[in-house]
Amino acid sequence: MRKFAAEKTRHLLAHRKIFAAVSQHPAAPLYSSSSLQKLEPLFSTAVLLRRLSTVADKPNPSSESSSGSMASDYSCTPVKIDSINPKVLECEYAVRGEIVILAQKLQEELKVNPDAHPFDEILYCNIGNPQSLGQQPITFFREVLALCDHPAILDKSETQGLFSADSIERAFEILDQIPGRATGAYSHSQGIKGLRDTICKGIEARDGFPADPNDIFLTDGASPAVHMMMQLLIRSKDDGILCPIPQYPLYSASIALHGGTLVPYFLDEATGWGLEISELKKQLESAKAKGVSVRALVVINPGNPTGQVLAEDNQKQIVDFCRKEGIVLLADEVYQENIYVPDKQFHSFKKIARSMGYGEKDISLVSFQSVSKGYYGECGKRGGYMEVTGFSPEIREQIYKVASVNLCSNISGQILASLVMNPPKVGDESYESYSAEKDAILSSMARRAKSLEEALNDLEGVTCNRAEGAMYLFPRIQLPNKAIETAKAVNTTPDAFYARQLLNATGIVVVPGSGFGQVPGTWHFRCTILPQEDRIPAIISRLTEFHKRFMDEYRD
Amino acid sequence: MRKFAAEKTRHLLAHRKIFAAVSQHPAAPLYSSSSLQKLEPLFSTAVLLRRLSTVADKPNPSSESSSGSMASDYSCTPVKIDSINPKVLECEYAVRGEIVILAQKLQEELKVNPDAHPFDEILYCNIGNPQSLGQQPITFFREVLALCDHPAILDKSETQGLFSADSIERAFEILDQIPGRATGAYSHSQGIKGLRDTICKGIEARDGFPADPNDIFLTDGASPAVHMMMQLLIRSKDDGILCPIPQYPLYSASIALHGGTLVPYFLDEATGWGLEISELKKQLESAKAKGVSVRALVVINPGNPTGQVLAEDNQKQIVDFCRKEGIVLLADEVYQENIYVPDKQFHSFKKIARSMGYGEKDISLVSFQSVSKGYYGECGKRGGYMEVTGFSPEIREQIYKVASVNLCSNISGQILASLVMNPPKVGDESYESYSAEKDAILSSMARRAKSLEEALNDLEGVTCNRAEGAMYLFPRIQLPNKAIETAKAVNTTPDAFYARQLLNATGIVVVPGSGFGQVPGTWHFRCTILPQEDRIPAIISRLTEFHKRFMDEYRD
Repeated sequence: MRKFAAEKTRHLLAHRKIFAAVSQHPAAPLYSSSSLQKLEPLFSTAVLLRRLSTVADKPNPSSESSSGSMASDYSCTPVKIDSINPKVLECEYAVRGEIVILAQKLQEELKVNPDAHPFDEILYCNIGNPQSLGQQPITFFREVLALCDHPAILDKSETQGLFSADSIERAFEILDQIPGRATGAYSHSQGIKGLRDTICKGIEARDGFPADPNDIFLTDGASPAVHMMMQLLIRSKDDGILCPIPQYPLYSASIALHGGTLVPYFLDEATGWGLEISELKKQLESAKAKGVSVRALVVINPGNPTGQVLAEDNQKQIVDFCRKEGIVLLADEVYQENIYVPDKQFHSFKKIARSMGYGEKDISLVSFQSVSKGYYGECGKRGGYMEVTGFSPEIREQIYKVASVNLCSNISGQILASLVMNPPKVGDESYESYSAEKDAILSSMARRAKSLEEALNDLEGVTCNRAEGAMYLFPRIQLPNKAIETAKAVNTTPDAFYARQLLNATGIVVVPGSGFGQVPGTWHFRCTILPQEDRIPAIISRLTEFHKRFMDEYRD
Repeated sequence: MRKFAAEKTRHLLAHRKIFAAVSQHPAAPLYSSSSLQKLEPLFSTAVLLRRLSTVADKPNPSSESSSGSMASDYSCTPVKIDSINPKVLECEYAVRGEIVILAQKLQEELKVNPDAHPFDEILYCNIGNPQSLGQQPITFFREVLALCDHPAILDKSETQGLFSADSIERAFEILDQIPGRATGAYSHSQGIKGLRDTICKGIEARDGFPADPNDIFLTDGASPAVHMMMQLLIRSKDDGILCPIPQYPLYSASIALHGGTLVPYFLDEATGWGLEISELKKQLESAKAKGVSVRALVVINPGNPTGQVLAEDNQKQIVDFCRKEGIVLLADEVYQENIYVPDKQFHSFKKIARSMGYGEKDISLVSFQSVSKGYYGECGKRGGYMEVTGFSPEIREQIYKVASVNLCSNISGQILASLVMNPPKVGDESYESYSAEKDAILSSMARRAKSLEEALNDLEGVTCNRAEGAMYLFPRIQLPNKAIETAKAVNTTPDAFYARQLLNATGIVVVPGSGFGQVPGTWHFRCTILPQEDRIPAIISRLTEFHKRFMDEYRD
């Protein structure tokens, strides 16, 4: 066993430098430029990483502080890179990659010398972190959170001058739902029952079908919920999880950490990132033929990084596919509030399944939701939940046990999850200001998505599907051969080469498509729609100008 | 691989009923009565669980709602108990056990009929969750949290009437440390840099040695930090972690989930739960002889469930042992503020190591801290951190990568962690009220510990070591043979039998010692010191009366 691990480790060692020196840098996630390039229809993250050793050997722009020479000073400490869990080495979350590390370096240089670069500031378009770019929190939500944090002020007269009447009322309601009003106590491992009741009311209002508070597991953001399901389902490398390509790298990371196999299915860019059942079937059969037992299908709707919103008919086909093939449907629905086009609507997979007449015993379905996305974008609060349906009581008990190991998720995040699923209603004192804040954010996001999409499509050799939802655009760039050759010469992928040039010229940070996976030979980048609206024209003009010069330089 | 897993699963299946029906019940953790009984010097959690099948076969008091008959209705759903990850089945966190499930059932019965039992209420002495039992939060901490949640009120005049001047000032300081003042944004994966700086100042003031903010990883409570280290260190069953017996079951659960082997070392009850180096050596050698590579030593100081505080000399021996043997020291120091006896003091292991002249390159040491314990007891906030020292930069990068997968811990918890490590100082407006609140809680805990300890030692056949620290007493009960035989006859462990009788007679909930591990043939229970002080006399008289009747009934 250990011999095998050691061998595996040697393969992985070459790759480790990608993560060098990250601990010195702030957290704006990004994605390694190399992680999902050169996909084949079936691969494990380990196989993938082994193929990347040449890429990994390239010098890391800011790894001086933690280079090999320093590591040797630790020769007396017991933990060596070849004696840690190889799954950790394999895991390629890649929330840090060379582009962001470079961006942070440039930012430091600008601090020292504002004239160091041909731009004044770094524009982080690499991560769905709205409030880091100036989006303001929804007032009502923050009022309620503050009052629940310090209930001692609830009945003070000054409080009425500072807080809306319905936020005070809501805080009282929430406190009454917490045993002993103790917001500082561990809750039920699934979360406070009264808050789960409220969330279920929100789900019922959204779907028109009943929801059961015993199905809700509140978690610190959606990520721990995803890990929990992967931990439950994955026994070994022989267990596979069908994931879209391009995908959000949480999935590949989690599958690697739990030792499973990622079975990719490709979204069809030509049909607006369409999800074809024939592709699912093909990949499922191919996995089976290789001895991989597919346990679950991940669907991200609205899509990340692709921004597509699934059509209802398509969702029905997906439900039938999972039902027929006996696999769990893991529905990442964290962007359910982020829809920007009038011809598309969000439908939860549970609503779709129930509307087809499939009940609790017919399909195993997990829906993930988060307070980090939507119009609220409360990433720092780490609130979220999963709604778990179609699992037998004995399996549910195992999920519960795993949830219990960390006792409970944070209570503020739990409260916020209940608020986003049950915001102010018509007639509430806060309703108007709440609606105004919400509409302003969502309509601005829609305008920003449209402006960026149009600007991208105006660029030579760039095509960009509509951002129907979520927070991202994922344009395809037809790179000239000369650019591709130059990238090869400097030992990087062509999309990473483009992103690096863009950053150096404009200060704009995007993530190369290879961080999410893409059809071999195609090149993309992911760009968020999150910079505040008054910055969008400058971003567009900088990007347009850069792209022109880039094409002029490399045009074949 | 899968064949092996399936075989393993069959062994484990008999055990699954222990967790039946838990999802319907509120979260007050407890510990399975059977999990660590009949320990041998070296065991894996899997081996342990296999031995427990007879215990597991006993009927579960409230499992009707999720019995096998209902499970059969799920025959069309894909996930079966024998097709999930066997490590999940093996994991015995046992935060739910038969005693608490019974307590919850009795509580429901009391709601319907207040005369249903010979007591008015259930007294939960099973879990370190102070605010669930009426402990009030520290005002200053909650003021700052509320202001950071809703910074819009910071410069309003009413705010000065509601909040102390230094809480307003502190909130401004903290907001200034957060890029863009965005408390709703993802932070650096290790936590906000400014808050880590503050925590380091607190560590430096405590220890008298420097602390580096790059060594701090803020986490949602201490549990995720423990998992992170286990995930890093454990490659397979051949990797062992030395854990005290009795232990806090997070460790056995985490080792099981990550597929390692728990290598137990026994604390010596006769010397006040002394930690003997000779015992560590013996168990290490025994593990080695069985092909197990010991990666780390867990030390819980102050002890849980034992309440002992390690002497400085003993700590030095432990540091030398880890250094000499080349194993990582995992120091659970979450009870560092909970010391109740004048002859003992808390010394962090880092302070001990540095005072011995050992630096960063000499010993690998991780210290875990939490906002859930101490005098603040903010369990629901899920704040905590680990201080990671003595790991090479390349290993640190791997820890960072794992931390990054969940983006960051919740910001309120991060802020609270900075507050507990840097509370108000002499001269601050809040200092007097803060000190009064803190001292009242700690001195009351000390009195409660003393009262309960004396009362326990007054009971026939009961001996109880001092609660020098933490929040628990772990008395030993010399059970009469007749009680032991009766327990056997009803297919339960003698300590669980005692705990069940105690609950049925008095409403007091304690956790049988077998949930933590104990020397075979000895019997204990864990009882928190957390019920409010005015309840202690009633608890003592109920317990005393019960114990007398129990002994009268079963005395040999």
